[in-house]
Amino acid sequence: MDLEKFIRTVPDFPKPGIGFKDITTLIHNGKAFKYAVDEMADFFDPNEIDLVAGAESRGFVFASALAYKWEKGNVLMRKPGKLPYKTVSESYQLEYGTDSLHVHIDAIQKGQRVLLIDDLLATGGTMKACCNLVEKMGGIVAGVAFVIELDFLNGKDLFKDYKFFSSVHYDNEDI
Amino acid sequence: MDLEKFIRTVPDFPKPGIGFKDITTLIHNGKAFKYAVDEMADFFDPNEIDLVAGAESRGFVFASALAYKWEKGNVLMRKPGKLPYKTVSESYQLEYGTDSLHVHIDAIQKGQRVLLIDDLLATGGTMKACCNLVEKMGGIVAGVAFVIELDFLNGKDLFKDYKFFSSVHYDNEDI
Repeated sequence: MDLEKFIRTVPDFPKPGIGFKDITTLIHNGKAFKYAVDEMADFFDPNEIDLVAGAESRGFVFASALAYKWEKGNVLMRKPGKLPYKTVSESYQLEYGTDSLHVHIDAIQKGQRVLLIDDLLATGGTMKACCNLVEKMGGIVAGVAFVIELDFLNGKDLFKDYKFFSSVHYDNEDI
Repeated sequence: MDLEKFIRTVPDFPKPGIGFKDITTLIHNGKAFKYAVDEMADFFDPNEIDLVAGAESRGFVFASALAYKWEKGNVLMRKPGKLPYKTVSESYQLEYGTDSLHVHIDAIQKGQRVLLIDDLLATGGTMKACCNLVEKMGGIVAGVAFVIELDFLNGKDLFKDYKFFSSVHYDNEDI
C-alpha cells in the first residue's frame, strides 16, 4: 500500500514556509492505519521488545496500536506537567529555546528493551531525547520507528546505533 | 481481570486534594492494556461504527488501539492549535474559564457513526464537547466509552441519550 497518498501536506503550518505532513488523513482510513502499524510491526521482532513507547502525542497513536497488537506494555513520553507521578526528564534543543520530555520513574526498569515510536522524523531532537531517557533509566533502545521521514534533514544520522524504521520518505522541502 | 488494581491514585495532582487516577500503570501492563481495549470493544458492535475518536491525549491511547483492532478510521479530537488543517471547534467550561476541542473539518462526514473515547469520566465536559462536535458536523454519536468513571461526579447524566460504557468505578473522593 502506498501510504504517501494518505498523507496531507498542509502549507505554512505551524509557520510560513513549512509544509506540515499531516497523518490525520492516514489514520482516518482504517486500512491505511492498520497497514502503517503492521508494516512497522513486521520490521521488528516482538520477542526482542519488552515495551513500546510513544512520544507525545501523535506518537501515542501508533505506539498504542502496536503495544495492543503485541500485548506489550505501553509507555508515554510526555511534555512537562502532564504526568502525575515522579518523572525522569531529558531536555532537547528547539529552533528557539529548549523543551523536555518526561517519563514516569517506574515506567522503564533496568534491562528492559524499549521500541520508541513517533509519527515523523525531522531533525530528530525529540526522538534522541527519548533514547537518552531510556538509557538514563538503564533501559535498552530496541529500535526507533517513524511513519514519515524527512530525509533532507538527515535526522537519521542521530540513530546509527539503533535498529531504525521509517516508511514514507520526503526528499525535499517542496510543499 | 480487575483493572482497578492496575490504576495508581496519585494524591494532590494536579492540585491539593485531588486524587488523580493514573492509567499509565494500567497501560504499562500489556495484558491489562489489551484487556481494557477488548472489554470496551466487546460492549459495542463494530458493524454500527464507522469511526473511533479519541480525546486529547490519553483518549488517543485507547481509541487508537480500538481503531486498529476494528480496522476503523481513527479521529483525533485536539486542543487548540494542534491540528494543521481547517477545524471545527466546540468550547466547554472548565472550573475556571473555558477550553475548546477541535477536529478537522473533513474528519467526520454526514451520517458517519462515531464512537468517542476518553480514559476517564469526571464531570463530563470534555466528552460532551466531543458529542456536540460530532453532531455539529452531521455525524452520529455511536457511543461514549471510558476506562474509568468517577461515579460521585455524576458525569454520566450528560450522556443519557447515548450508548455508554465505563469499566472501573470510583464511588467517592477518597485518595
